[in-house]
Amino acid sequence: AMDGAPPPPSPAGLSAFVAVSQLLGLTLLATTGAWLGRYRGGVAWHSPLQFNAHPLCMVLGMVFLQGDALLVYRVFRHEAKRSTKALHALLHGLALLIALVGIIAVFESHRAQGIPDMYSLHSWCGMATFVLYLLQWLLGCGFFLFPGASFSLRGWYKPQHIFFGITLFILSITSCLLGITEMLLFKISDSYSRFVPEGVLANTLGVLLVAFGLVVGYVLTRDEWKRPPLAEELALSMDFKTLTEGESPGGDS
Amino acid sequence: AMDGAPPPPSPAGLSAFVAVSQLLGLTLLATTGAWLGRYRGGVAWHSPLQFNAHPLCMVLGMVFLQGDALLVYRVFRHEAKRSTKALHALLHGLALLIALVGIIAVFESHRAQGIPDMYSLHSWCGMATFVLYLLQWLLGCGFFLFPGASFSLRGWYKPQHIFFGITLFILSITSCLLGITEMLLFKISDSYSRFVPEGVLANTLGVLLVAFGLVVGYVLTRDEWKRPPLAEELALSMDFKTLTEGESPGGDS
Repeated sequence: AMDGAPPPPSPAGLSAFVAVSQLLGLTLLATTGAWLGRYRGGVAWHSPLQFNAHPLCMVLGMVFLQGDALLVYRVFRHEAKRSTKALHALLHGLALLIALVGIIAVFESHRAQGIPDMYSLHSWCGMATFVLYLLQWLLGCGFFLFPGASFSLRGWYKPQHIFFGITLFILSITSCLLGITEMLLFKISDSYSRFVPEGVLANTLGVLLVAFGLVVGYVLTRDEWKRPPLAEELALSMDFKTLTEGESPGGDS
Repeated sequence: AMDGAPPPPSPAGLSAFVAVSQLLGLTLLATTGAWLGRYRGGVAWHSPLQFNAHPLCMVLGMVFLQGDALLVYRVFRHEAKRSTKALHALLHGLALLIALVGIIAVFESHRAQGIPDMYSLHSWCGMATFVLYLLQWLLGCGFFLFPGASFSLRGWYKPQHIFFGITLFILSITSCLLGITEMLLFKISDSYSRFVPEGVLANTLGVLLVAFGLVVGYVLTRDEWKRPPLAEELALSMDFKTLTEGESPGGDS
């Protein structure tokens, strides 16, 4: 706070849930790495191992970073909204870039091995999610980051942005689970039903992905944990109270 | 309304979205039926076709009926809460029964063919979803339907019930998508990548499942479409205002 007073503490439950989400996120990455490293020969670009960059990039970008981008308004609840917004856009942008690398990895490795593209439910869901996620990012930047959009327009778009943001996060996790299932049935279809360690590990990765989504979703949807408007935002948004319904979506700009 | 005045109309957008959700739900059933009937030999109990009862029951119970059970508070927004609550519990109970038949179908057909159980990510997610769905139903009945739970206890449990209710609906759809992917890779792994009609039809069923979840989720999460408390509920809950935070969860009982 600019007046030197200590900021009010975050709700205790919130901090615990955010800590668990980050532990789960790191466990996701470790489990993906263990699967690819121990059972799938590791990850490398210009090589037959290029495919393995796909699951690693998608879990890192479309799940862990996307999830953390959704959490910034809860974690940095007492920072200026302008900085939090910039961090939100930046993390989503980074997630998009890493996901793009992961998508290039699968198309290039398919071409090298003569495997057709875009025929499976995983590819349909995953590609739709990525394209809509890019669109959502562009719309978010257009409405909230650059000047120009009116307060009433922002107020109309904000609930849509939040609904589709959470939806795309859920679809990203769903696409990962579909990808895990596909990969197991392609690679270990003979031994999967005998509960071999690789199958159990990859299933566990699926369960961890669901758990990460559950914890992030719980933090995002609890009313008491929503970011409270700062005093200076409230003062500013008073002037626009008759123009917009509810909390002003860009009270600091 | 008991005083004979016409009830206020439902918001126009709500009716349109509910209509679309029901069209999508029926299309889901038709598409599942078309897949099983046209490409998988149809559905029958004591026969090698018993397995096919599994996808049909799960889409009908865990998706269509569960989704409709979630929508009743939006659709019957001007009925007494007691009746709407009973319908909510009844639809979930019916969904549970039909899902149970679908689960028995897969275990019996596995036993008949000597296929192991519960090794795949689909089976892990699906079984966890079913067990937690049963638990949520029992807790819901205990807290909201039978007398005994205090207002403050109901008020504490209600947001948890809503969060986990929507989560279980999402997990149900995710489990269906995993099941579709598994079934295609078991049955048409040789031709799936050539965009054969069965693969495209089953992928389309997956997309329709996502679309149904999206429309139901949108209806459930729009603040303006939440069920408004009836006049008599408001009058009753006034007495308990100091005991509970926010809207009374059982204002009519």
